[in-house]
Amino acid sequence: MPENEAEDAGRFAYEGLDRVLHEKARLGILTALVTHPAGVSFSDLARLCDLTDGNLSRHLDVLAKANLVKITKGFEGRRPHTTCALTPIGRKRFREYLVQLEKVLRDAAAQEDAADEAAKTRTRPGLAGA
Amino acid sequence: MPENEAEDAGRFAYEGLDRVLHEKARLGILTALVTHPAGVSFSDLARLCDLTDGNLSRHLDVLAKANLVKITKGFEGRRPHTTCALTPIGRKRFREYLVQLEKVLRDAAAQEDAADEAAKTRTRPGLAGA
Repeated sequence: MPENEAEDAGRFAYEGLDRVLHEKARLGILTALVTHPAGVSFSDLARLCDLTDGNLSRHLDVLAKANLVKITKGFEGRRPHTTCALTPIGRKRFREYLVQLEKVLRDAAAQEDAADEAAKTRTRPGLAGA
Repeated sequence: MPENEAEDAGRFAYEGLDRVLHEKARLGILTALVTHPAGVSFSDLARLCDLTDGNLSRHLDVLAKANLVKITKGFEGRRPHTTCALTPIGRKRFREYLVQLEKVLRDAAAQEDAADEAAKTRTRPGLAGA
């Protein structure tokens, strides 16, 4: 069906959408952290992202193992206080990821435009109406 | 750390990023299908998305169970021929998903701007340089 088989191969593979960053909860965590170079407390981050402590811990582990976030455990007075921040590598990788995400949106928009055009000029009835 | 605790709760939860659509391979499949109202053959779709037949089958099952794609099994001459197309619901849900994705990009861009501003006016040294 595609016009140019060789060029089209892998056209929609989006290899740049690294699953470590793309997972929905982690995407929220990264978006929350990108504005706070000095870090966000664990409890604030859980609230901002609407995650349980257990879920947040699990996702932060994944991000920390990939060297994208840094977890600092300290004290605020006598109470333990954990702070999370993007690493420089994390900031760079997240920016690269966002560029890929923009590409998906551009592709989908272009595809929708093409489909609208095709629907207008098509003589035989199509499958989907939407 | 956030200025307004009540308003900020769940600020980065992105509930609209339905995992059925957000998963990387399925996002590629949906983007490929959105231009073809009459459907794409299974083999073309595998090539476009750079997926093995097994992986494509697995992801199409997830999308079909959610009523987002329709799989039509037929014949081309004597050879079995499978066609995949978005359902009207699938097209609608994918459009809604793309709106959410745009929100993530806007949030991240706004957050980056805010971080740049904060870095300029901050007197104490920040954690991350980027």
